[in-house]
Amino acid sequence: MDNYYMSIAIKLAYKAYRKGEVPVGAVIVKDNKILSTAYNKKNKTKRTIDHAEILAIIKANKKLHDWRLNDCIMYVTLKPCDMCIGALKESRISKIIYASDTSCCSNSIECIQLNDEKINKESSGLLKDFFSSRR
Amino acid sequence: MDNYYMSIAIKLAYKAYRKGEVPVGAVIVKDNKILSTAYNKKNKTKRTIDHAEILAIIKANKKLHDWRLNDCIMYVTLKPCDMCIGALKESRISKIIYASDTSCCSNSIECIQLNDEKINKESSGLLKDFFSSRR
Repeated sequence: MDNYYMSIAIKLAYKAYRKGEVPVGAVIVKDNKILSTAYNKKNKTKRTIDHAEILAIIKANKKLHDWRLNDCIMYVTLKPCDMCIGALKESRISKIIYASDTSCCSNSIECIQLNDEKINKESSGLLKDFFSSRR
Repeated sequence: MDNYYMSIAIKLAYKAYRKGEVPVGAVIVKDNKILSTAYNKKNKTKRTIDHAEILAIIKANKKLHDWRLNDCIMYVTLKPCDMCIGALKESRISKIIYASDTSCCSNSIECIQLNDEKINKESSGLLKDFFSSRR
């Protein structure tokens, strides 16, 4: 199922890409059901915090009526930045599974790379495309 | 002026306290003018991210129509958590000045304690009061 949820996150990253946003997508899953999905919108909204992960957290909070996201898993196409790792820790999420690893983060939360080279490469490729098209 | 801006942050922390929220207040200043103010609202909104610092960043983004907060200073009554430090780094804020230091954070952003023992103690006291009243 990890690959399935990550493939949805990848689709969201493509959506961000098409809108001229850094292509990152995120999905939060609880009890094998999708709780929320989001993609990076920072350029459009001009809000510092509007990374895919944060937007997915906000939507999940709304759905659960709780700032706590215990027993949830986040699937995200890129290893999260410090802000998002911090937010995920604050949310008490159980686990983060990421695809590409082009950022660097310090983490004390379980944060593991997806065990699927093809999907991971697709995510990396999408990010490389985006940044090379911007140069 | 540092003490003046921090005294406003302290007032905001009292406002949070009266509403049953962890008492933290934040003020963002640019060119010696207040750009935004906020206090912690996490319990009310049930959003993981609604710390005073994040809410102040969101308001400042709106005011400047920019996700970048270059040349801004944040005054905050409590040393920020990892999420907020991460968000402040993402916002490219110049400096953080905090009062009490009861949390721990790793930071690579200029993050200095206010040089005013009285205000710093007031902030610590407010937090201690809050948590002891909850026990």
